[in-house]
Amino acid sequence: MIVLSGGTGTPKLLNGLRKVIPEEDITVVVNTGEDVWISGNLVSPDMDTVFYLFSDKLDTDKWWGIADDSFITHKSMKAIGYNEGMMLGDIDRGTHIMRSEYLRNGNTLTSASSKLAQNFGIRAKILPMSDDTVTTFIKTSSGNLHFQDFWIKEKGKSDVYDVFVDGASKASISPRVIDALKMDDKVLIGPSNPITSIGPILALPKMKETLKDKKVTAVSPIIGTEPVSGPVAKLMHAKGLDASSISVAKCYQDFLDVFVIDKTDHFKESDFKNEGIECDIIRADTLMKSVGISINLADDIMKIFDNV
Amino acid sequence: MIVLSGGTGTPKLLNGLRKVIPEEDITVVVNTGEDVWISGNLVSPDMDTVFYLFSDKLDTDKWWGIADDSFITHKSMKAIGYNEGMMLGDIDRGTHIMRSEYLRNGNTLTSASSKLAQNFGIRAKILPMSDDTVTTFIKTSSGNLHFQDFWIKEKGKSDVYDVFVDGASKASISPRVIDALKMDDKVLIGPSNPITSIGPILALPKMKETLKDKKVTAVSPIIGTEPVSGPVAKLMHAKGLDASSISVAKCYQDFLDVFVIDKTDHFKESDFKNEGIECDIIRADTLMKSVGISINLADDIMKIFDNV
Repeated sequence: MIVLSGGTGTPKLLNGLRKVIPEEDITVVVNTGEDVWISGNLVSPDMDTVFYLFSDKLDTDKWWGIADDSFITHKSMKAIGYNEGMMLGDIDRGTHIMRSEYLRNGNTLTSASSKLAQNFGIRAKILPMSDDTVTTFIKTSSGNLHFQDFWIKEKGKSDVYDVFVDGASKASISPRVIDALKMDDKVLIGPSNPITSIGPILALPKMKETLKDKKVTAVSPIIGTEPVSGPVAKLMHAKGLDASSISVAKCYQDFLDVFVIDKTDHFKESDFKNEGIECDIIRADTLMKSVGISINLADDIMKIFDNV
Repeated sequence: MIVLSGGTGTPKLLNGLRKVIPEEDITVVVNTGEDVWISGNLVSPDMDTVFYLFSDKLDTDKWWGIADDSFITHKSMKAIGYNEGMMLGDIDRGTHIMRSEYLRNGNTLTSASSKLAQNFGIRAKILPMSDDTVTTFIKTSSGNLHFQDFWIKEKGKSDVYDVFVDGASKASISPRVIDALKMDDKVLIGPSNPITSIGPILALPKMKETLKDKKVTAVSPIIGTEPVSGPVAKLMHAKGLDASSISVAKCYQDFLDVFVIDKTDHFKESDFKNEGIECDIIRADTLMKSVGISINLADDIMKIFDNV
């Protein structure tokens, strides 16, 4: 099972999936478009969330960072007038240091990630989408902002005119992701933002074409017209889409086999058909307020794959 | 007053000096030959010791690092199998991050250091000897080691064949050090190791020539033939010198006006003269076991400068 992942939504689903199938059967292909060098080391927000999830370190209140981490370095700098820009925890910083030292010692990002996974004792394969630098920028009323600057520093307040994934067209899919896609037929797109979380993965050359030959199931991160979390509405508008489960399906329609929408979603199967979306529509409880619901959703998804 | 400084010994003297004369009258020119990039940021051991001293943060048990610092990042990495090589404290790490971010933003090391001093609220001028990369290597039975690798990782155990200061001959004295030397006649060489602490400063082009025109007082880091701290004996032997106060004076004899030796030093003034050392020899209590002794020594030194 290959899972395309961003932050928050998909990790919640992965938290169920790892209790439903053996961890070693899970390959997670992670968005690196939000990666950014801070304080000398590479922060990879979506990779880190997945690492912390699988090593039982994740702060599952916020769904990022390490539970009960301290912030001594960050706060000591702030106390004497230096603002680091992102609030990095002390243990979290260790992850960035290890990753970056592996890179400085000549490893690819994939290989550095594999070493990190080994340090964390993780048996699932956690793969960055690419070894090349790919960066998502948000074109806003305050200029072109790195996603982290838009979402963390600006708290998503600026008007958004466009989203572009810099470097994607010249980047290559990570060789280990290519291998995984050769070995495995099942691809799950988690309930992450289709523009800035899944979008950069799909923007890699040959990714969409490859997915056409796969059994692809996606879970909507929007219930009807209500995003579950994050800045997805603003970002979809910037791409000329309304914020709705139907628009999410449109993002994936070239290769999508099954689309999972929430049981309370007010759109009907015919609404999707009327928009030219040909995939099967399945309803489930997608609002993962507890790990129990995540497990149930993962169960539902495994049944879908059995039937595709 | 300009003070040439390395680690431990000279900071102890500075701790007295800053209680004897106004802090803003002190310019410290610091050895950067032990600087090293660790975990993405530039560690400057001697600069940091001086910063922490003047900002009242120094751990004065060890005479390096920050008092009561924690080691969460370092230990969390170690717990999952990654050895950082140097035991960096969490608050200490913040200093390295700020310095390196200032450098990455285009500042020189001098300018980055000035910003750091401002953050720390320090009124003394703390100047790196050079903005260029100068690195002290120890030629040992285990190969050429960075001073930090020799002293921290290897605990100074290897046999030492030679010491060389890489980059010194092509480096320039920091422009602010040159300015300070134009404005001030009094130069104090603290009781630091003459080979690896003061040696790199003296190895900079034109430094020795400039000192010839100054009133130079040096304090011996060796009492008779007993080094007060550190690996000085091994390093002096590698340079063909015995470990003695007389050999220290020889390192400085081209420009030295007054040499301060310990009141218990068994060498007599005539012993120095017999070795061709022409400077005045003054005795004082140089074993700075308390801040009171540091203050007395600083007082003695100020009297010396008044009489030169």
